[in-house]
Parts: sequence; structure tokens; C-alpha cells
Amino acid sequence: MTVQGYDPRTGQPVGDPVESTSDDGVDAVCRAAAEAAGPWSARSAAERATMLNRVADALDDAADALIAVADTETALGRPRLTTELKRTTNQLRLFGEVLHEGSYVEATIDSPNPDIVPPRPDLRRMLQPLGPVGVFSASNFPFAFSVAGGDTASALAAGCPVVVKAHPSHPGTSQDTADVVANALRAAGAADGVFGIVHGVEAGKRLVRHPSIKAVGFTGSFSGGRALFELANSRPEPIPFYGELGSINPCVVLPDAAARRAGEIAAGYAQSLTMGVGQFCTNPGLLFAPPSLVDTLAEAVRGSSGGPMLAERIRDAYQSGVDSLGSSDLVELVATGAQPDGGWSATPRLFRVDADTFVANLEKLTEECFGPAGIVVTYDEPETLLDVLGRLNGTLTGSVHAEPIEHDLAGRVAERLRRIAGRLIYNAWPTGVAVAWAMHHGGPWPATTNPLHTSVGATSIRRWLIPVSYQSWPQELLPPELRDSNPLGIPRRRDGVLGSR
Amino acid sequence: MTVQGYDPRTGQPVGDPVESTSDDGVDAVCRAAAEAAGPWSARSAAERATMLNRVADALDDAADALIAVADTETALGRPRLTTELKRTTNQLRLFGEVLHEGSYVEATIDSPNPDIVPPRPDLRRMLQPLGPVGVFSASNFPFAFSVAGGDTASALAAGCPVVVKAHPSHPGTSQDTADVVANALRAAGAADGVFGIVHGVEAGKRLVRHPSIKAVGFTGSFSGGRALFELANSRPEPIPFYGELGSINPCVVLPDAAARRAGEIAAGYAQSLTMGVGQFCTNPGLLFAPPSLVDTLAEAVRGSSGGPMLAERIRDAYQSGVDSLGSSDLVELVATGAQPDGGWSATPRLFRVDADTFVANLEKLTEECFGPAGIVVTYDEPETLLDVLGRLNGTLTGSVHAEPIEHDLAGRVAERLRRIAGRLIYNAWPTGVAVAWAMHHGGPWPATTNPLHTSVGATSIRRWLIPVSYQSWPQELLPPELRDSNPLGIPRRRDGVLGSR
Repeated sequence: MTVQGYDPRTGQPVGDPVESTSDDGVDAVCRAAAEAAGPWSARSAAERATMLNRVADALDDAADALIAVADTETALGRPRLTTELKRTTNQLRLFGEVLHEGSYVEATIDSPNPDIVPPRPDLRRMLQPLGPVGVFSASNFPFAFSVAGGDTASALAAGCPVVVKAHPSHPGTSQDTADVVANALRAAGAADGVFGIVHGVEAGKRLVRHPSIKAVGFTGSFSGGRALFELANSRPEPIPFYGELGSINPCVVLPDAAARRAGEIAAGYAQSLTMGVGQFCTNPGLLFAPPSLVDTLAEAVRGSSGGPMLAERIRDAYQSGVDSLGSSDLVELVATGAQPDGGWSATPRLFRVDADTFVANLEKLTEECFGPAGIVVTYDEPETLLDVLGRLNGTLTGSVHAEPIEHDLAGRVAERLRRIAGRLIYNAWPTGVAVAWAMHHGGPWPATTNPLHTSVGATSIRRWLIPVSYQSWPQELLPPELRDSNPLGIPRRRDGVLGSR
Repeated sequence: MTVQGYDPRTGQPVGDPVESTSDDGVDAVCRAAAEAAGPWSARSAAERATMLNRVADALDDAADALIAVADTETALGRPRLTTELKRTTNQLRLFGEVLHEGSYVEATIDSPNPDIVPPRPDLRRMLQPLGPVGVFSASNFPFAFSVAGGDTASALAAGCPVVVKAHPSHPGTSQDTADVVANALRAAGAADGVFGIVHGVEAGKRLVRHPSIKAVGFTGSFSGGRALFELANSRPEPIPFYGELGSINPCVVLPDAAARRAGEIAAGYAQSLTMGVGQFCTNPGLLFAPPSLVDTLAEAVRGSSGGPMLAERIRDAYQSGVDSLGSSDLVELVATGAQPDGGWSATPRLFRVDADTFVANLEKLTEECFGPAGIVVTYDEPETLLDVLGRLNGTLTGSVHAEPIEHDLAGRVAERLRRIAGRLIYNAWPTGVAVAWAMHHGGPWPATTNPLHTSVGATSIRRWLIPVSYQSWPQELLPPELRDSNPLGIPRRRDGVLGSR
């Protein structure tokens, strides 16, 4: 069995097929990861930071070649891929900063107190790596959510070896990236087992079931994610599964914003909807707006254009989704973007529906249609809007366009959205996910399989760490993070007070 | 259907039977919790702290009556129950302190930076309550891990309404405690839905499946916990399930410690093994020791005595476990404690096995036998010990008894134990779990269903909180925790730096 890459612009094969990893191959990679787990976790945070920076440098050095291959396999274009690779290497470097700063281990020291109930001994808690991690790459970010993407960077930073399951729509990019990462780690002195890669559907399932793997990160479709989530939970030893499964990203335009900034809002919406052929988990699939805005929105979408999608399967699913909407009498097609040339291309579409019909057909109309298709849900009264928002399921983001004069309503909308959305956006669009300390890229089911954690930003490292408490432990046997002298100078909590003692 | 309490000292019913909650009853309690979620989460942390303190005061005021009922239903004795109730109210008050300190929301502010890739907008992240929580009480702590125990206290503190599933072996204690909690909350102005209780097996299953419930905490048996874990995962909308399922708590005595402190170690072990008739999740089920220590250990266990267990089912499972060990030719019975009088009583037992036989029969000999039964695994060589420890599954605790002269070996033992145990203990025994900032009461499967979190201590609140990021949000619409002026004066991270700005 092999995995073959294709050029979405032509539908023709590109590059040599990559061998699917055999059962024995998966076992060998996972065993190597298990053997590397102790030594990798025993390295200091500073050493791991240096290694991540070396990987980032090596990827930057290989940028031209990696981008060329990725462009033939994804048709995302060199400008976008150049930015995406930069984002990827900046992400690796951010985790280097997280490791140096040191508070990610949550070092906590309580002095003994025999007089309370129950009595308290000397207790010292910190987070430590949970073991080898499996990472499933996404199709739509061949660098930033793929082989050397956020899951890999955060897991390596945490002290966990990583085994990546490559995405089948960019096998060449995946293997080339993996070679760069592995060589950089080897040159910096890391054991081979710290990083590995497998290809093929069966290899992915075996990876999730392998006893050496202690957690899994996944970005992809709802159906694929739920199936692997269930596989992870049904193991003899279930493991944490962090899946980002897709999202409808409701955006709300309040009446005054619609009246005063119709053109600007419509242009921003059309750009966010069609950017990257709509292939973002933060694509604004649902827009809630007064009826008066629909014509302006339609005009903007008519001025947009589509392009080739990442894979034939993705284009077919998109086409089937818009066909189903188009032939339904629930919604009205109000705009079609420019028809692109050949290959696996998709054309932008805008549909409209009124709030009552939307609520009556909620399940059908909130299915994610991955690609440049949007639904405008028109509302007349604020109370109708608030009622509809209270019925939505979990999503990665929720956006509000408002004028200061309607902040009272904006606050009520935010109160609805914060219960279902991981990130609330004001007068902007959900596409574009910063890599930062304060980023949360997550949300309640079905946006993710675990609402407590993020897959982007500094705190994504928390997914791969488990607490350990040391009770009455001698100083010389404690990890440096927990010794009285605080040799690493990291932020710690002592007797309940945060500081650097 | 009703739930009847029994006196373990006599095996006879005590108190009036409590009605099992009907399907409609469960639905009503869950609906009320869902309705209370918004208002409860909208209260300030300081208000919730006051409410928790009121609940603690009310429980202290009701101590005599609660302890009297609990003693008839559990036979744990008034001294232990008095201490346990004090622990429970101190736990509620600790969460009051956690709320006032404020860093539990992880407030994080990043200022905009348009020049990096990808550009960073104004981003502000904090943790917010995830919604109504279901709490399954344990049998063995009728106060501290029951109706007003750690799961309830931490979830209420987080801003989540709680619905408790009462444990069937202390229904009267559960209902009486629930009445005190509900009355105290009502008197302090909380909506009725903030706290509810249900009784009966079917009610428990319905609770886990109810769409209003957004997470579950559980302390109990492996089989019950795994079944509910699967129920939570198989919902249309799966929810986080935090189960503490039991533990074998390996304790290691190194050669010099065994040689120099045999009597003290044996006495401490026997006390830890038989305290509370061995009904602790931190009971030291496995002891690794040099063969020379066995006679002293056996003598100490022969000097111990048993007592009535919490429930007939628990006593029967214990008896079946020790009978199975006793009739096996793998282990040798080396000591039996004093036979207690009547009721559902259990007698302490100590078995021995050598390390090779133990490894060859690992699965059978690491099954938790809940109660005052221990297995001593004898080892001759340190390498044998290290090899055996490397084969153990997840556990709540791991203990080491060592002399300073053998710290090199102690460090290697700790390196093995930290991969499987949530708390590492030096020269002490695992029973006794402090309620503190630095406590971790958790561990890898099968000790818990989620190795990232603790069910005891300040950080147990993290289980009920989900992140939300606010992007480019106007000051006046931000939660106070994220406003520039930091009106609550809580610790925050600004542009990567922890502090109180």
C-alpha cells in the first residue's frame, strides 16, 4: 500500500508515492518513542528549548524546497505557504520561550502544618510529561497543523516524544518536513525515538491503540475525529484524545453596525469566507444579520472567486453540501462567486434563511460545509437573535459586529456566545489565529472533544503534562523546579502565594 | 423503588428508606441546574466564596446530628467522622481562599503586535465555568468525598451548579447533608437549582446522560467508574468524566531502611493497612521489601484488628478477594489480624510472594482488594526491584522508605514511580490526603480516567473550567478579570510575564 500525492490544480499525481507504514513499522516507531521518553523528559527545559529552536532554524533553511513541494500538493500558493511556514517556526520558538519562563510546570510548594485538619506534610507539586504522544496532521495547514505544527511543538516542549500520522493529501510535504525535523533533532543530540512519522489509515488506527502512546492530538473532520476519539476511549488503557473537529463560527452583525458599516462588513465577510478557498476551521459559516444587509453581502460574495480545494474528497463533500442546500426549499441561494478554472475547484456560495426557518431546521443548517459557502440568517428583533444564539452547539469562535451605542445588546450576545465559543471576536472576523499566550483555539463539543484545552497558543502545552506531588521528599532527590533554592528561578506558588521564591 | 441504609455493625436496616429519584425527578433537578448556571456563574468569585463559607458554617453547626446518622450507616466511628466533617468544611473554606486569590482563572493579556507572523490582535484569556456538574459520591468518605465533598466544593467554587448522585450505603447521611447545603445556599440567596441531589442507580445513569450536565466527577469502583466513563463518552455530546477508580499504592522499603528501622516501618505499615478497615483508595496494597522484613511485618499485622466494613457488598468482595489469594499457590498467607465481632466484619490479612512469581502473575496480583489485605513482594536485588516497579500500572501514590546512604537507589526508584504515580511519598505511608495547593490526588489509568487532573486540593477546580479568549473586545464589555485596570487585583499574565498588573 502506498499514499500518493495529487496536484489539486490538475487532479494529477505529483511526487513519488510514499509507502504506508506496516504494523511492524508502527510498532517500531512507537517502541522507539517509549524508549526515548525517559531521556527526553530528563533533559532540562532549557535544553529542550534549544532543540526546538534548532528545528525552527532547520525548517527556515529548508523553506524554499518545502514550500515548492507543499504548493504542488495543496495548491495553497507560495505567498500563503511562506507565511504559514513562518508561523510554524515562530510557534516552535514561542514554546522555547514558554520553557525558559518556566511557569508551565505550575511549581507549587506548601510548607508543613501539623495543626490543621487534615494535617499537611511538606508537599511540592509540578507538572511532568505524560509520555509519547500521537499527532494527526490536518489537510488544510500543511505546515502549521501538520508534521511540525502546534501539536508536535507543544508535545516536544512538554517533554513528550511525538509520533506523527501524516495527512494523506500532502505525503511528500509531510515526509520532507519529517526528515528536516528528525535531522535537526539528531544533530542536536536527541535520540531518534523523540520524533517519528507514520503514513496510512491503518497505521493511524494502530498508533491510537498502541500501548506506548499516552495521548493523541488530532485536527480534522468530525467523523474521523469522533471515530478516533472512540478508539482512544475503548483501549484497555484509555488515553486523553484532543480532537479539533470543525466549527460553524457564528458571526453576528448588530443593527447599528449593519446600518453604518454595511460595505466594510460585507467586504470583510466575503474575504474571510473565501480566503484559502474557505478551508479554515474558523471559516465564518453562519452570519446573523438584519435583512437589510443581505444585498450588500450578496454583492460582495459575487465579487469573490474560488479555487482548487485541497483534495478531491474535500471538493466532492463541498459540492455535495452546496448542492443539498441549493436544492432545498429551506434556504435561498443569493450569490455565487466567480467560477474558477479546472482541477478540484470550488465556487463560493451565499445562502439566506430567516431566523424562524433556521431554528426549525437547526440540525441540517448547522452542519459544517467545509469550503467557501456561507448562510446568512436574517433576524428582525434582538430577542429573536438572542433566542437563536442560545440554541447553537459548541464552536471555536463567535464574532460580534457592533457600534458603541448598541453595547448593551452586544453584551447580551456575548453572554450567549461565551457559553458555546472558545474565542469571542469584536468587529473582526474569525479567520486568522494568533499564536500567543492568551489564545484559546478550542470550544465545547462538537468543536472539540475536550473543552478544557486549546490546540494553539502557549497553554496548549498543558495537554501533555500530568501533575506529580512530592511529599516530605529530601531536597537532593527533588527536581530542581521544586528545590527550596529555586535554582531555575522560575515562578512558583509558595503557601498559596504566586511569586518567584 | 427505595434506597435503604444499613448498620454495618448489625447488618440491620437503619433510618427510613429514601425514595429513588424518578426519571421526571432527575430531569427536573437537571433542568433547574441548567437554569441556575447563568446566574451562578455571573456571581463574583467573592460572592461564591461567601456562599461556600456559609455552607461550611452550616455543616459545622449540624455536626452532631450528621455524625450520628453517618455513624449508624457507616460504622466508621465518631472520632473519625468528626475529623472527616472538619476536613470537609475546611475544604469548602480553602476554595473560598482560592476564589479570593483569583489566579485560578488564569487571566492572561497579550497586547497587539501587527508586525509578527501571524499578526497578534489584543487577546485576553480566562477560565470560565463549563456548566452543571454531576457528582457521584463515594462509600468510604460519607462527608469528604460525598454530598458536600471535594467534587461538589470545587465545582460550586468554579461557578458550576452541582447535582449529586448519593451513595446507596449512606442515603440518610446524604439526604441530611444535602438539606443542610441546600438550606445554607438558599438562605444566602442562591437559586435552588445551584445544588440538587438524586438517589438510585437508574437516576445516576440518567444524570450522566442528561444534556444539561456538562461534566461528571466520580469516586468509586473500577467497574462502576469505567461503565459511567463509557456512558459519558457515548453521549451524542460526550462530556469530561473525572473518575477516581481505585489504586494499589505500591510502597517500597529499601535495604538499609529495612535493616535499621524494621520495627517502626512494620508498625507504620500495619497501621496504614488496617486504618478505617483498610477502606481507603490510598491503602498500601503492595509492599516491596527485602525478605528479612517479612517476619516483623507479619508480627505487626497479627497485632492489628479488623472491624465492620461499609456495606455487605464491600465485605463480600473483600472476603472473596482474600479467599482467592488464600487458596492460590502463588502467595503465602503470613499473618491474620484479630477477628472482629459480628456484622459485616473483615479481618486483616498479609500475604507474601517473591518478585519473580509476582511478575509472572502481575495481572492477578495487582487487582485491588479493597480492605485491610496486603501483599509483600520480596526482592533480593535492587535491579529486580526496579524491573518490577517498571511493570506496574497507574496508581494514586508511590512510597519509598530509605536511609540517606541509599539515596542513589531511592532516586532510581522515584524515577520509576513518578511515571505511574500521582504522589510520591518519602518515609511515610500513603493514607492521609492533605487538602492543599500542592496536593495531587490522581494518577494514570486505572487509578483515574484522566491523568491530567486531581480530585483533591486547590487545583481540582481546573476540572470544571474552560478557557475563553476575548479578541479586540471593548473594555466595558470585558469581564472584570480582564480589564486593563485589574479591578479585582488578581494575579495575571501580561505579555508573557506573570504578575499582578
